[in-house]
Amino acid sequence: MRRALELAARGPARGVNPRVGCVILSPAGETLAEGWHRGAGTPHAEVAALAGLAPGLAHGATAVVTLEPCDHTGRTGPCSRALIEAGIGRVVYGVDDPGRASSGGARRLRGAGVDVEGGLLAAEITDFLADWLFTARAGRPRVTVKWASTLDGRIAAADGSSRWITGPEARADVHLRRSLADAIAVGTGTVLADDPALTARDAEGGLLAEQPVPVVFGRREVPAGAALGNHPHEPVRLTGADLDADLAELGERGIRTLFVEGGPTLASAIVAAGLADELLVYLAPALLGGPRLAIGELGIGHIDGALRYELAEVDRLGRDLRIIARPAAADREGI
Amino acid sequence: MRRALELAARGPARGVNPRVGCVILSPAGETLAEGWHRGAGTPHAEVAALAGLAPGLAHGATAVVTLEPCDHTGRTGPCSRALIEAGIGRVVYGVDDPGRASSGGARRLRGAGVDVEGGLLAAEITDFLADWLFTARAGRPRVTVKWASTLDGRIAAADGSSRWITGPEARADVHLRRSLADAIAVGTGTVLADDPALTARDAEGGLLAEQPVPVVFGRREVPAGAALGNHPHEPVRLTGADLDADLAELGERGIRTLFVEGGPTLASAIVAAGLADELLVYLAPALLGGPRLAIGELGIGHIDGALRYELAEVDRLGRDLRIIARPAAADREGI
Repeated sequence: MRRALELAARGPARGVNPRVGCVILSPAGETLAEGWHRGAGTPHAEVAALAGLAPGLAHGATAVVTLEPCDHTGRTGPCSRALIEAGIGRVVYGVDDPGRASSGGARRLRGAGVDVEGGLLAAEITDFLADWLFTARAGRPRVTVKWASTLDGRIAAADGSSRWITGPEARADVHLRRSLADAIAVGTGTVLADDPALTARDAEGGLLAEQPVPVVFGRREVPAGAALGNHPHEPVRLTGADLDADLAELGERGIRTLFVEGGPTLASAIVAAGLADELLVYLAPALLGGPRLAIGELGIGHIDGALRYELAEVDRLGRDLRIIARPAAADREGI
Repeated sequence: MRRALELAARGPARGVNPRVGCVILSPAGETLAEGWHRGAGTPHAEVAALAGLAPGLAHGATAVVTLEPCDHTGRTGPCSRALIEAGIGRVVYGVDDPGRASSGGARRLRGAGVDVEGGLLAAEITDFLADWLFTARAGRPRVTVKWASTLDGRIAAADGSSRWITGPEARADVHLRRSLADAIAVGTGTVLADDPALTARDAEGGLLAEQPVPVVFGRREVPAGAALGNHPHEPVRLTGADLDADLAELGERGIRTLFVEGGPTLASAIVAAGLADELLVYLAPALLGGPRLAIGELGIGHIDGALRYELAEVDRLGRDLRIIARPAAADREGI
């Protein structure tokens, strides 16, 4: 299974499909074939492995695969049937497929008399597939809401100026995290006010190797000459009228992690809808006062309605503080 | 000098005057007498020590005293003259007296032919007298502005409810720090809205041994039945119209440390006036949105006007974060 996981890691980190690896072993334990998934539209790992075998060689063999074989006909046929048709006698897999359409492979294999065992290296594989599993379960990307504010929660001075609230270390961290996200979202208000590039850049302004897909929420038009137009990826437009539907659409496009950069209207709407899986707050030891807040109205009347999170990480970055918080597991004594 | 510092520590920690200790040594180095200051209106340490000597015995002796002998006639006469009149031949002291009225003792002593040396154990004594020295230099107490807010800078929900934004560990820390402060300040708005007791209490609600003097800023009347009326100390009333004058008055009353608890009007005024020597922020990993902010208007139009601080301490307290920040030494690159 460890070899299967190594093979899985050869696949593309982004895209609709999970990274999966497969090893086919003879009854004596010899490796007969290996395969991994190379991305949407290409054969799944099991089929890729079977393809390396002469007809009949798979008969009675064991398929070791990191993810439960799919039972779904998409751009390729279901792996469960391919394994059955090849005569595989035993399937050992890592984690269950949580996909609504694709799960059920283990059941079908067992129904066909194949010996099936799941859960091998499950913790490690769950970690490896965390973002894909989250999207498969939730039907939407994992959402990080990021802002940089002063200690009193301001993201800009009264005139809108905000360069720079935080120091260079915090800004570099933002760019690194942008480059690790599949997509980066802002509202049209921010596009019109700040004309952001929505790229992940290094300290000299050069583009990092990986760039998130820019996503713009809202109905207002993006000006023809907006900096966004120079982004290496085509921007995705969403109305923001139905955030659940919008995020589901992003999930279907293979976006597993969404970095919400603002402004306050979009951030507040995402937070109020309970869609923030992570808050990433860069806090500058400064005060600004005034009307420009990171979070605006959340519709909370009483303290009992406060949205509670748990501190996951607190680190100093230069002169600033980086706080990562995730939704609290449950309400607690004293809240 | 270490013995003189031990003697100083016998004096009262609070009050207008510093804690001072004095040892008188014979030319051969034997201790002839000791003294310390017991609080305003009682003899200063030097005079207390001299009082333990038979007439003439101080002649040619050395006085070792933690603070530069005063040159000021207040409720007691200047120590410089008392030492000269007693015939002391040498004075060794720890730290200079920064008081505008009381300093100059070393100069007068030297003028009278006394051998004077300052700076012995200065770092240690400066630390021991930190709050008094601050007040003597600044002409006002050292001010800590404290608030407890959510990650988005809110101190209450829209309806004003705020019990409890932070958890029990943070609240216990607040009460401990209250008890260590000479005074605790709120505005009349907070008195009218929250009817605070302004006492330092333990987890069971019992009063801690030391209680800060309650100070109320503002012109509005405090209701006859306000909880403040049950405070062990008589509340001090100040208009808040001239914060410099108000704080100077507190300094003259012997208040060296002031704990500003709110509400936002008072906290914002103190901060905007540049009078916050320390920010003490308890940050709950929660979001509230809405209009109830820790800091309101500071009159800052552009980001260049941001009030900059430095993180001094960042600690987790239960589920919350405690942040202590102090004014930045100077503006820096990138601000």
